[in-house]
Amino acid sequence: MSVFEREIVVRFEHCDAAGIMFYPRLFALVNEMVEDWFAAMEHPFSALHIDQHEGVPTVELEAEFIRPIRMGERLTQSFRVLHIGHSSCRLLHEARVGAELAARFEHALVFVDLATMKSQEWPLNLRAAMTRYEDHL
Amino acid sequence: MSVFEREIVVRFEHCDAAGIMFYPRLFALVNEMVEDWFAAMEHPFSALHIDQHEGVPTVELEAEFIRPIRMGERLTQSFRVLHIGHSSCRLLHEARVGAELAARFEHALVFVDLATMKSQEWPLNLRAAMTRYEDHL
Amino acid sequence: MSVFEREIVVRFEHCDAAGIMFYPRLFALVNEMVEDWFAAMEHPFSALHIDQHEGVPTVELEAEFIRPIRMGERLTQSFRVLHIGHSSCRLLHEARVGAELAARFEHALVFVDLATMKSQEWPLNLRAAMTRYEDHL
Amino acid sequence: MSVFEREIVVRFEHCDAAGIMFYPRLFALVNEMVEDWFAAMEHPFSALHIDQHEGVPTVELEAEFIRPIRMGERLTQSFRVLHIGHSSCRLLHEARVGAELAARFEHALVFVDLATMKSQEWPLNLRAAMTRYEDHL
Repeated sequence: MSVFEREIVVRFEHCDAAGIMFYPRLFALVNEMVEDWFAAMEHPFSALHIDQHEGVPTVELEAEFIRPIRMGERLTQSFRVLHIGHSSCRLLHEARVGAELAARFEHALVFVDLATMKSQEWPLNLRAAMTRYEDHL
Repeated sequence: MSVFEREIVVRFEHCDAAGIMFYPRLFALVNEMVEDWFAAMEHPFSALHIDQHEGVPTVELEAEFIRPIRMGERLTQSFRVLHIGHSSCRLLHEARVGAELAARFEHALVFVDLATMKSQEWPLNLRAAMTRYEDHL
Repeated sequence: MSVFEREIVVRFEHCDAAGIMFYPRLFALVNEMVEDWFAAMEHPFSALHIDQHEGVPTVELEAEFIRPIRMGERLTQSFRVLHIGHSSCRLLHEARVGAELAARFEHALVFVDLATMKSQEWPLNLRAAMTRYEDHL
Repeated sequence: MSVFEREIVVRFEHCDAAGIMFYPRLFALVNEMVEDWFAAMEHPFSALHIDQHEGVPTVELEAEFIRPIRMGERLTQSFRVLHIGHSSCRLLHEARVGAELAARFEHALVFVDLATMKSQEWPLNLRAAMTRYEDHL
């Protein structure tokens, strides 16, 4: 099992007029994690979307926001893979400020052919790479 | 009971390299509905955030994405109020393309003092206005 | 000559932690004007980009920001066409709050084949429609 | 003289339905450079905006887009300081893909009191730090 993790500084642009992170931008940061994960597994989004006309749209998201996230704070984002299905997977994301859990998401995405938007089976090498991050908790 | 509703055209900017709506932008559109609702209830976000230093951060969100949303499609966004608590409320948002349900969100937000980020009771006139949109299904 | 114009309310999402419009979002609003213009000329961006694999990328932009734009203000956006070239055009955008000029942009865009990113001549019917907005000042 | 520089990978989110960077997002990336610069000069945007109620809004921007920027490309952003005024400064930003210049911006920003939005003199220590990046070309 391996956790995918990064640390970012909360930027001016992430924050709203209240000086706290605007939640749609946290979802964009969550999506960046998924993008980095696919790149680390040698399926970068550029090849996936542009060359292969495949994508991984989000089909479900359950989010809990526990603590406001403020400009300038260091945010640690991490996720683990809860489940890998035939053509989908389920991730558990966490965002922490220091030791405090700030937000938590369960996130299901599905592997699709962009032409038809139908789900399709994960390629074997991608699936093998994904399992290295799997963690049944 | 009253449903809050609007129709928009899916813009170039809402879409990703796959030509479908990027889901963090759908959350921004959901937030616009909440902003319009508060304006309709005579608590515009500018007065709320800037003058009164109060806000309504999202604390929970459960989203289901049922069908891709494509550039140029007409999207009907609506929500109803499922529950009004002491200092929070729970909304059910739907996004449709024609007759087809494209996405569905349950959304809990809380009324806070921005200085302390502590929840506080809804003002009476705001709460009275909110109840006009309440719908226990 | 015809001026293309719309009025919007400055949204929560357009504003930064200072409560004023974050300038990259004003460029997104400028781009919406161009998108609406192409739709009004019966070349909607969805058909242009997805079906015809053509686009109108920005090649030059000169912007002047004269007055801050605040959340809740009504912003009037307008533009006129300064010049139509073989495969490009030059627009003059203005953004006003009431009678006050808030920002002003000169904006050159070019008509391209997205596969090659090479410029190509405007289609005759599109060019004819564009000239109806031309204004040499 | 010192050039401020960073390299990023062009993300899924930066790109539009044509698979190339949407220009308002390049301005957001330019703004991140300015934010990182102020942090490097020990005036982080969080302290500046939230604690001191000061800001550095953009007052002029001249942009030239020379080459499309594509998803997955490595983008090198750099800037140098062309001029430091009493309460303003002028930056020259460049964005390169490998050896190729992709975009170029001249960017003027001004130091203001956010309460009045009036310009004010740069603090001495900040001005001294800024001059280390100055380059009259």
